[in-house]
Amino acid sequence: MTYCVAMRLASGMIFVSDSRTNAGVDHISSFRKLHVFQQNDERTLVLQSAGNLATSQSVLSLLRRDIGEAEKPHLLNSGSMYDIALLVGETLRNVIKRDGDEFGGTLLLGGQIRGEAPRLFQIYPQGNFIESSVDTPYFQIGESKYGKPIIDRVLRYETPLNQAMQCALISMDSTLASNISVGLPLDAMVYHSDSFSDSEQYHITDQHPYFSQIRQLWSKGLLSVFSQLPPLQL
Amino acid sequence: MTYCVAMRLASGMIFVSDSRTNAGVDHISSFRKLHVFQQNDERTLVLQSAGNLATSQSVLSLLRRDIGEAEKPHLLNSGSMYDIALLVGETLRNVIKRDGDEFGGTLLLGGQIRGEAPRLFQIYPQGNFIESSVDTPYFQIGESKYGKPIIDRVLRYETPLNQAMQCALISMDSTLASNISVGLPLDAMVYHSDSFSDSEQYHITDQHPYFSQIRQLWSKGLLSVFSQLPPLQL
Repeated sequence: MTYCVAMRLASGMIFVSDSRTNAGVDHISSFRKLHVFQQNDERTLVLQSAGNLATSQSVLSLLRRDIGEAEKPHLLNSGSMYDIALLVGETLRNVIKRDGDEFGGTLLLGGQIRGEAPRLFQIYPQGNFIESSVDTPYFQIGESKYGKPIIDRVLRYETPLNQAMQCALISMDSTLASNISVGLPLDAMVYHSDSFSDSEQYHITDQHPYFSQIRQLWSKGLLSVFSQLPPLQL
Repeated sequence: MTYCVAMRLASGMIFVSDSRTNAGVDHISSFRKLHVFQQNDERTLVLQSAGNLATSQSVLSLLRRDIGEAEKPHLLNSGSMYDIALLVGETLRNVIKRDGDEFGGTLLLGGQIRGEAPRLFQIYPQGNFIESSVDTPYFQIGESKYGKPIIDRVLRYETPLNQAMQCALISMDSTLASNISVGLPLDAMVYHSDSFSDSEQYHITDQHPYFSQIRQLWSKGLLSVFSQLPPLQL
């Protein structure tokens, strides 16, 4: 399985993906699930994938193949994020139609094109999609439930990007702790609105000093809060 | 949906169930999902149900109907918890076979019969079942993922019953916060090993002073731990 989370907030966007892929417990591998398409000073696009690996790889191969073809719409010439969501949704639908419904997948598409605000979409296997909002500023795909409570408690549209990234990392930690189908390393990216930059990308292994530190502090902190609850009185 | 959790620990057992049942969002009701069968000084049995309400109600009706019939095995004359798990599993399988596979259900069965230690089983729609162990001292059914991380962090086989109940209530709180298909009131029960008593049963509404208090303290505590994490450094 997979766990990916993306947030579209007042000051920009946050993306975090795990990298574990498994086809049965004896065939576990690491594959990148966070993909960046960059055109300096004009657009920054991020795609995150969950579901069948063959499907998401095919979608990405097809999207990459068409880049540069002048006569058809592609990731770097489409005029709006909505058009790109349509294009990605159509590509996903066509791959699933070709390979079979059992090889489904779901995508998150976030980014910004000059002239528009940043936008975030969740794209379904059927090719249609929903967009985030001020009230629902984040999407999750894959094994989303373990890490949802902490996001619901902490995240608001106004949350600063550094806190939002901390929240996404803690959400990932809860998922890693409870589900072996989600695994390190993580790929993470911070996007500041109107920067049109992909420079803040991070690869987080189990050796990563900051991630290791906050995992420990979080675990200790939770146990401390728990141990300080008043005695049971039912 | 539903969320039920049961724990079989060194000093006894803990059971907590929500009570929300829905057949579409416009048909939401409360039904008890925690059922106790008691024979003083000899056996205490607890059944928790998730899945189709018609199925779980039928299983309980059939199990209750047979109580007192001398010539066949029932909940109050079967000689071991294993025999009772077999009986409940067979009843569940037969109801699903009768009504259709789409009306599935999963049950937790815990309790103690004099002469045996307390035992806890998770019973599948197919009628087979697994038993908890020292390494895996708890089972969850229904919407289990939201509330799993806190149990994995806190619960050990040696955890005292009062702390285990706090842990189950916090796990329920995380689930209530993130999933509207799980709802109050809760039914909860503490069973002390070798007590053969069902006296510690609790009904927990949104007005319950202790549950309200620890929900607030937990939420505040989490936000406080989160706000004290060191500044993001990727």
